[in-house]
Amino acid sequence: MKSYRKELWFETSTRIAFINITSRVKEALRESGINEGLCLVSPMHITASVFINDNESGLHRDYERWLEEKVPHDPSLYEHNRTGEENGDAHIKRQLMGREVVIAVTGGSLDFGPWEEVFYGEFDGCRKKRVLIKIIGE
Amino acid sequence: MKSYRKELWFETSTRIAFINITSRVKEALRESGINEGLCLVSPMHITASVFINDNESGLHRDYERWLEEKVPHDPSLYEHNRTGEENGDAHIKRQLMGREVVIAVTGGSLDFGPWEEVFYGEFDGCRKKRVLIKIIGE
Amino acid sequence: MKSYRKELWFETSTRIAFINITSRVKEALRESGINEGLCLVSPMHITASVFINDNESGLHRDYERWLEEKVPHDPSLYEHNRTGEENGDAHIKRQLMGREVVIAVTGGSLDFGPWEEVFYGEFDGCRKKRVLIKIIGE
Repeated sequence: MKSYRKELWFETSTRIAFINITSRVKEALRESGINEGLCLVSPMHITASVFINDNESGLHRDYERWLEEKVPHDPSLYEHNRTGEENGDAHIKRQLMGREVVIAVTGGSLDFGPWEEVFYGEFDGCRKKRVLIKIIGE
Repeated sequence: MKSYRKELWFETSTRIAFINITSRVKEALRESGINEGLCLVSPMHITASVFINDNESGLHRDYERWLEEKVPHDPSLYEHNRTGEENGDAHIKRQLMGREVVIAVTGGSLDFGPWEEVFYGEFDGCRKKRVLIKIIGE
Repeated sequence: MKSYRKELWFETSTRIAFINITSRVKEALRESGINEGLCLVSPMHITASVFINDNESGLHRDYERWLEEKVPHDPSLYEHNRTGEENGDAHIKRQLMGREVVIAVTGGSLDFGPWEEVFYGEFDGCRKKRVLIKIIGE
């Protein structure tokens, strides 16, 4: 069994952001030399998500609007913010969008349907954060 | 390490549908010959979910009602639909229900508690769609 | 390829509870002797979640309050409860918080960022329930 590990770094200029990381995950898979296996992509932070969906900016604005409506940023609403943080909402938003994705690796490629792309979802940006790619297989 | 891959195809007659695929995942596991490992089950589409919950029709109606209340289908509500689509809601519903499941394989069986069953959740049906099963282990 | 399996048992005294299981997952990893691979942690029940987030009690109260506001416990609201259950809400709450987590194993450790901790999330407690840990790798 082989395994491969890589970190991606991000620092977004907005509190909420969605970044297409598909090509960087594919690059990591090529570097790994793994043909058959599983690829885990997960944020190393608890106010961010990695998710798979459509590479369409209108949809990303829909995500942001829906999340903001159901989980408003207003720092006064969250007990968590009594610790001095202002990101209580981001911890809930990340749960709703999910933490990680696990992707099948087949014949040396990400085994995707026609529209699947991988995104880093940031809900408490403007600081340095990391995504972990871990691939196992052979 | 062994790996096994199989696709399941669906074409639902309703926009939203929940289909029990447990027996088909078990069949794929038997075909794989894998005794110890991990089994990934994921849709190859971005308006569908694979999830694990109860095989109870009342619960499935609860899911549909709750999702429709929080994420109404009304195509006028979503920027994504300016692309000509009418499925902006389905992209949000799928995030809330989750994309994929990873199931432990132990002694040649899905390592499940007493009530766990696997479902394909369709949120933009009436078209052909696929689920991918990828099993690795030995 | 090695694999390792362990169950954790819980019986909470409240309907909703969040229990930090990070040290128990680390213990299972040590017992497994696995250095590189993937660690799946999943509930064996369909009204519970395993999730990764912050070990902060105010945040956990935020989760409970938000979930209760969006998915009230009131048993009269859910068709599922016509089966005699009173946990229709718990099946929805668990989907929103997610079922399982998959964690990278690197150099014999859970490959975590600085704040990641693993929690068992109970939404229909006061009964015996289990979490499954399955680790594969070498």
